[in-house]
Amino acid sequence: MKIIMDTLGGDKSPGANVDGVIAALEKYPDLSFILTGEEDYLREAAVGYEDRIEIVNAPGIITGDDKPTDAIRLKKDASMIAGIRLLREREDADALVSCGATGALVAAATLRIGRIRGIRRPAFCPILPTMDGGTVGICDSGANTEVSAEMLLQFAVMGTEYMKCVFGKENPRVALLNVGTEAEKGDDLRREAYALLSEADGVNFVGNMESRDLLSGKYDVVVADGFSGNVLVKTVEGTALELLKKLKRDIYSKTRYKIGAMIMKDMFAKEKAFMNYQNYGGSVLIGTEKSVIKGHGSSDASAVLKCIEQAITIKAGSMNENISAWLAMREEKKETENV
Amino acid sequence: MKIIMDTLGGDKSPGANVDGVIAALEKYPDLSFILTGEEDYLREAAVGYEDRIEIVNAPGIITGDDKPTDAIRLKKDASMIAGIRLLREREDADALVSCGATGALVAAATLRIGRIRGIRRPAFCPILPTMDGGTVGICDSGANTEVSAEMLLQFAVMGTEYMKCVFGKENPRVALLNVGTEAEKGDDLRREAYALLSEADGVNFVGNMESRDLLSGKYDVVVADGFSGNVLVKTVEGTALELLKKLKRDIYSKTRYKIGAMIMKDMFAKEKAFMNYQNYGGSVLIGTEKSVIKGHGSSDASAVLKCIEQAITIKAGSMNENISAWLAMREEKKETENV
Repeated sequence: MKIIMDTLGGDKSPGANVDGVIAALEKYPDLSFILTGEEDYLREAAVGYEDRIEIVNAPGIITGDDKPTDAIRLKKDASMIAGIRLLREREDADALVSCGATGALVAAATLRIGRIRGIRRPAFCPILPTMDGGTVGICDSGANTEVSAEMLLQFAVMGTEYMKCVFGKENPRVALLNVGTEAEKGDDLRREAYALLSEADGVNFVGNMESRDLLSGKYDVVVADGFSGNVLVKTVEGTALELLKKLKRDIYSKTRYKIGAMIMKDMFAKEKAFMNYQNYGGSVLIGTEKSVIKGHGSSDASAVLKCIEQAITIKAGSMNENISAWLAMREEKKETENV
Repeated sequence: MKIIMDTLGGDKSPGANVDGVIAALEKYPDLSFILTGEEDYLREAAVGYEDRIEIVNAPGIITGDDKPTDAIRLKKDASMIAGIRLLREREDADALVSCGATGALVAAATLRIGRIRGIRRPAFCPILPTMDGGTVGICDSGANTEVSAEMLLQFAVMGTEYMKCVFGKENPRVALLNVGTEAEKGDDLRREAYALLSEADGVNFVGNMESRDLLSGKYDVVVADGFSGNVLVKTVEGTALELLKKLKRDIYSKTRYKIGAMIMKDMFAKEKAFMNYQNYGGSVLIGTEKSVIKGHGSSDASAVLKCIEQAITIKAGSMNENISAWLAMREEKKETENV
């Protein structure tokens, strides 16, 4: 298996990316890489692994300030854009890992990488930790601001196969993000999607979910349009981060609190780790023929390694083949019904 | 001023509602009330205030499980529906306070209470605390799942006048909820709204906001369609609640943590109070001719009093007149431009 690593764009790039790659090479003897980024730096970093690392010079960086469509069009020398191009062109490349700007990565991958036959639009699926120690995937969370009910059904299937494959869940519970739990809640899109999801084979649909229940542990996949899914994920991140910051500030406001916090130091460290998204792996763009995995911007080497391992698991677990099988089954059922 | 109080439907109803009413009567000598609920109970509770409390028997309760449209149509004896009817019919009634089911209240008020002339749809605006000790209003957050750009502009104006009037903010900073901060982000609706907001008089528009920045204290009003606004508010609530629950569980897992937490007991109590939404008053439906204020379901007497005081401030501060003045100004400007 060959993975393309975009070595620029993360807060700890390129060091964390290269260290993650080398850890993966040590752990998985059949793995090889193409690295995009600053050639000189990468040549030096790859010494000793030349037979399993290919280097492509693409020293440009895309930041969150770049408009995605401009970045794709104008920054052809960027490590991310080069990575996408290689993923498209090189038949032997299976996946791309990047810790760069999400918007540009999702836009470039959606535009340039072929979709699984029958998939209307790929969906971006980050993972959040739930309060019972589990995980929940939000599908879609930003790739598509405008969607149809049929697309939401496809997101449900993609999320299901992803949570099965990468998180080992047997029969993922799928919910539809809505403004209330009753079947008739929300707008026409939501009501139509609810009906489709209720009768779909291969989807363990458990109903509408209000966003306040996201972290309850009752759901494995939350289906959403990319706009509200994006709001959902970023609100959890923002709220958790702001609360932890406030807690820290308040602790430092009094000596007595500092003493109390010292006694509980390891507990606070665990809370912080719990809310640290990189511990749960990258966010995957599902629905493309080849996987694109977005590591958190602050990823360290071990987080980069997790992203690489997600790519390996997706291939080994035949995630895309399972999605294709579902699509074929649905097509067949439609045809049978039409006869 | 006369306020209608729905005395049923909250977790601490009717006790908290009646106690809140009596506290308000003591504090504001010109105030009077119409109470809807269980007549016998209310008669007894109102002893000594008969000249300023009118009682209307309407003992039915609407819960979150009732489908709003059914509740409005079928539960005519419900205290909430009676309250809405009285608000509509009684010329001397100025506002309604209820701690009952949000969905039914918003639906009934939107259907039955007249709108400010020129307002397309009322918006529901809850308040969240920000991390710098301030507040932010989310307008709309559930009354309208489908909106136009012009409606979003009106929400901006309604939110602005509300934050000025009730929270004393001089020039509220208004942001548009979006998936990124750049002007071209989001779908067509967001881009159109961005353009309208940018050039509108009387709105201090500061640009797009990503949901992770909601609690930063950089914004006073966040404009959203009711679907994503609802997701936003409920995600903050859910995340904060789940994190505090987790913290508590973790503290109880070890004696040492319990000791540490004991030392910090007053700090944790303050964090809890900080995240307690009822401390910031009720959520107001803005855009109706008469105010409808939704207290939190768990409101106690002091929270109910806060809701009553919001109704007083809205009237005293001429919020609706200011919204009307803006609408008139915009109409005039449009006409001048067309000449």
